[in-house]
Amino acid sequence: MLGLMQDQPLLISSLIDFAQRHHADAEIVSRRVEGDIHRSNYGLIAQRARQVANALDALGLQAGERVATLAWNGYRHLEAYFGVSGSGRVLHTLNPRLHPDQIVWIANHAEDQVLCFDMTFLPIVKAIHSRCSTIQHYVAFCDADKLPADSGIPNLQSYETLVRAQPAHYKWPALDENAASSMCYTSGTTGHPKGVVYSHRSTVLHAFACAMPDVLNVSARDSVLPVVPMFHVNAWGLPYACAMTGAKMVFPGPAMDGKSIYELIEAEQVSFAAGVPTVWQMLLSHMGQGALRFSSLKRTVIGGSACPPAMLAAFNDVYGVEVLHAWGMTEMSPLGTVCTLKNKHLALDESEKMQVRVKQGRGMFGVDMKIVDEDGAELPWDGKAFGDLLVRGPWVLSAYFKNEGGTPLVDGWFVTGDVATIDPDGYLQITDRTKDVIKSGGEWISSIDVENIGMAHPAVAMAACIGMKHPKWDERPVLVAVKKPGAEVSRDELLAFFEGKTAKWQIPDDVIFVDAIPLGGTGKMQKTKLRDMLANYQLPAH
Amino acid sequence: MLGLMQDQPLLISSLIDFAQRHHADAEIVSRRVEGDIHRSNYGLIAQRARQVANALDALGLQAGERVATLAWNGYRHLEAYFGVSGSGRVLHTLNPRLHPDQIVWIANHAEDQVLCFDMTFLPIVKAIHSRCSTIQHYVAFCDADKLPADSGIPNLQSYETLVRAQPAHYKWPALDENAASSMCYTSGTTGHPKGVVYSHRSTVLHAFACAMPDVLNVSARDSVLPVVPMFHVNAWGLPYACAMTGAKMVFPGPAMDGKSIYELIEAEQVSFAAGVPTVWQMLLSHMGQGALRFSSLKRTVIGGSACPPAMLAAFNDVYGVEVLHAWGMTEMSPLGTVCTLKNKHLALDESEKMQVRVKQGRGMFGVDMKIVDEDGAELPWDGKAFGDLLVRGPWVLSAYFKNEGGTPLVDGWFVTGDVATIDPDGYLQITDRTKDVIKSGGEWISSIDVENIGMAHPAVAMAACIGMKHPKWDERPVLVAVKKPGAEVSRDELLAFFEGKTAKWQIPDDVIFVDAIPLGGTGKMQKTKLRDMLANYQLPAH
Repeated sequence: MLGLMQDQPLLISSLIDFAQRHHADAEIVSRRVEGDIHRSNYGLIAQRARQVANALDALGLQAGERVATLAWNGYRHLEAYFGVSGSGRVLHTLNPRLHPDQIVWIANHAEDQVLCFDMTFLPIVKAIHSRCSTIQHYVAFCDADKLPADSGIPNLQSYETLVRAQPAHYKWPALDENAASSMCYTSGTTGHPKGVVYSHRSTVLHAFACAMPDVLNVSARDSVLPVVPMFHVNAWGLPYACAMTGAKMVFPGPAMDGKSIYELIEAEQVSFAAGVPTVWQMLLSHMGQGALRFSSLKRTVIGGSACPPAMLAAFNDVYGVEVLHAWGMTEMSPLGTVCTLKNKHLALDESEKMQVRVKQGRGMFGVDMKIVDEDGAELPWDGKAFGDLLVRGPWVLSAYFKNEGGTPLVDGWFVTGDVATIDPDGYLQITDRTKDVIKSGGEWISSIDVENIGMAHPAVAMAACIGMKHPKWDERPVLVAVKKPGAEVSRDELLAFFEGKTAKWQIPDDVIFVDAIPLGGTGKMQKTKLRDMLANYQLPAH
Repeated sequence: MLGLMQDQPLLISSLIDFAQRHHADAEIVSRRVEGDIHRSNYGLIAQRARQVANALDALGLQAGERVATLAWNGYRHLEAYFGVSGSGRVLHTLNPRLHPDQIVWIANHAEDQVLCFDMTFLPIVKAIHSRCSTIQHYVAFCDADKLPADSGIPNLQSYETLVRAQPAHYKWPALDENAASSMCYTSGTTGHPKGVVYSHRSTVLHAFACAMPDVLNVSARDSVLPVVPMFHVNAWGLPYACAMTGAKMVFPGPAMDGKSIYELIEAEQVSFAAGVPTVWQMLLSHMGQGALRFSSLKRTVIGGSACPPAMLAAFNDVYGVEVLHAWGMTEMSPLGTVCTLKNKHLALDESEKMQVRVKQGRGMFGVDMKIVDEDGAELPWDGKAFGDLLVRGPWVLSAYFKNEGGTPLVDGWFVTGDVATIDPDGYLQITDRTKDVIKSGGEWISSIDVENIGMAHPAVAMAACIGMKHPKWDERPVLVAVKKPGAEVSRDELLAFFEGKTAKWQIPDDVIFVDAIPLGGTGKMQKTKLRDMLANYQLPAH
């Protein structure tokens, strides 16, 4: 016996339709590549998204064909989000921070037909277009008068010229909700980059979850600043969740320095901002220098990599901003857990609450998770046992595009590559990446725990902990550290700083000072490169 | 090209699985028919829901067969919600406030196989069982020692005996998400009651929407009191939304008087309560008599019928409780609109905000709506034009059970039977039921507007406005009023009270004082009965 409710597919076009109908005048504010502040709203975004759809029809693009973007967070990018997916094409966000060779490989693998890009990235496009074999049309996010005369890029046209020529009326197709809507490549640790292909269904369900009070808590009263890029994992789903709720959106464009972000937060009365720790570090540093305060910011979600406890404390204690510590993956659309308190925690004092907030948070409905040992047996949720983290759910991937890398599932569960504990209340704490855990004398040492202690030292700007081969213990931890400009600390002083903060056997055997730690395209520390750099390093004899 | 995300159906069993795994110790507190307070939690509810499922297997119930309930809000009812639907049967909540003949008709029409009931309703079950031709098993929500010895009810057994005999392990079936999960009959205004059949998909999507910050804003920090009954429209979806978020639940059982509700709110530190205006009127009356205050209640959702502005003001101004004015229907699972502010309203002063709050609110993502004129042409959202309200969406019905009453859709839109305005910001205001609108001299008069003015008079406890045939104007409004105990007001005084509060031609032609206005099974005024009562009434000559 079936239910008798209406059979309506979950579609991305419904999100922008809703925003247009119910929140037409809610603002979309962008700092542009041009440097100025541009003001739009959902009514205009919806109209231009339809013009984008008509333009893709005019270019002859078929359903399911890929339209790539190489762009900052901004209104044109948002129009492409809805116009491309809404009309049945697949939005493929390319990460401009990757090496051009990687971008070429990815664009060819995805068989992109169109590439839309911000003028910032013209040099990249110039460098790669001759090797992108499937791209037929290059569209620059600018007015016609900003187009370079002699770029050498074939079929280069201005987005504004292309879009404005189109009628504003377009009937969104009634797609299968399981149709592909968008894709994003993840670099992974071995082999080629792998494409994650989202569907309309997974995107809309993820948006529902994203907006919930225990997740990102997005409402029509919010002014939302996604500093986290739209070119990577759809800015954590915020463009969809904001359209679903009619929240005002504020886009930083290319200006991610502390001063620009602070000014934008104040000018647009941002209530909620989303970003990675490195960006917030720049913001906090700017705030501290000027003894500045926020007049509107209420909460911020921090993910991408673990948030240092010192940063949590600064936001919470100094600025009165609630930090939502979060964990997710490209393969998970990306939200998996967000750290919000439960009813039982409300009576705790601030320091006890902070003990909860340092964890990556609780799973939301729609994400099942478990931790398993090396034999695949499930481990208890006691906050102590740690093992490989497995997840499943309607916005978790089942396979990579073109089956790259084989099946990523074990018995229906996606193997995240993270190692974690889960406490009795369901709070997850990532202790490490599976490949970064240091196995010393049969015990595991979390490289992240060691890094957090190292980075708490006032003279340390950044620190990475990696395992070095050891004849007796298999591996021993070594801390690679970057000093703050003008700050000084010696190897022995830094090692002494660990005393009393962790078990003796978990203290690194050595400290290596470097000028910089290599960062990847999404701002994460590249420990593989670090290991290559230290190929000839010898552990000190004890 | 399809997306490559996991194919996981949206199932009610996943909700209770999630609550058990992530919020096992979140409390479920019930005031029982037995009179005491009972404490359970999601861990135990989940375990006993599985026992319910095993019990239904043992009784030989097939997938899709109906299990009826006749019960108050309480933990056993909640266990049935998840055990019945989770195992693939259809939960059919019967409304004990209906006439026994209607209950018999509905149970037979639904072909219920099992009836679970609270002992309060033993007299009803005694009166109807011989006429319920399909019910094979009667299960009383009590311990074996509370069962009556000589009820005459065949196959009567104790729920506790039945359930406790079952193993706590049960593997929920992997159902089609479009399978029927539950049903509820709506009395309608003409013809037989009509069955609305919800699906797992519609229920889970509705729960997502229900939990959102702009809707009921349900989180794991909440203590939720649904006074709105689980026997009607699934207590506005709260049992599902609370399981989805791990919110504490507090159930009032049969004690809906002001004192009992107040004591429960304080004892269980309820943060959010849901109910109809008549129940809140009893609560406010109790509060006022004792000069009481709430220590934990932050917000309340009021629906079922329009909330009188005076009640909104009392909650907001006197008690500091945010009122979420809401509108929905049995046919809509039931949520359609909830009144929460937008970003643009935050700077308004309290009286301006109140102008927004008196409306029934904004549509949420998932509910499309429009208003149309008598020819079906769409009317503007200008806050003035009013017309028939039509809705559509994945939790709006497509047909009634067994096609009772024919198709309720016009061009894919469900005709709500309400008349409404929608303002430029998308805020809906129900001006009347289509059948209650008073057509006077070619203009429409909203019976609800007239009632709201009448009920604002300090001596009036309840008021209904109905249209009476008039030789010149077609219809003219008449106010039927019930005085508060001990209060006095004359016909002319009450009519004078309307002066200056509405247009002259909208002031009733007469006032008729009665001892009571007939209420239906869901607490709404029954104007059909009122019209019957006044069949011989004559309008005064002017």
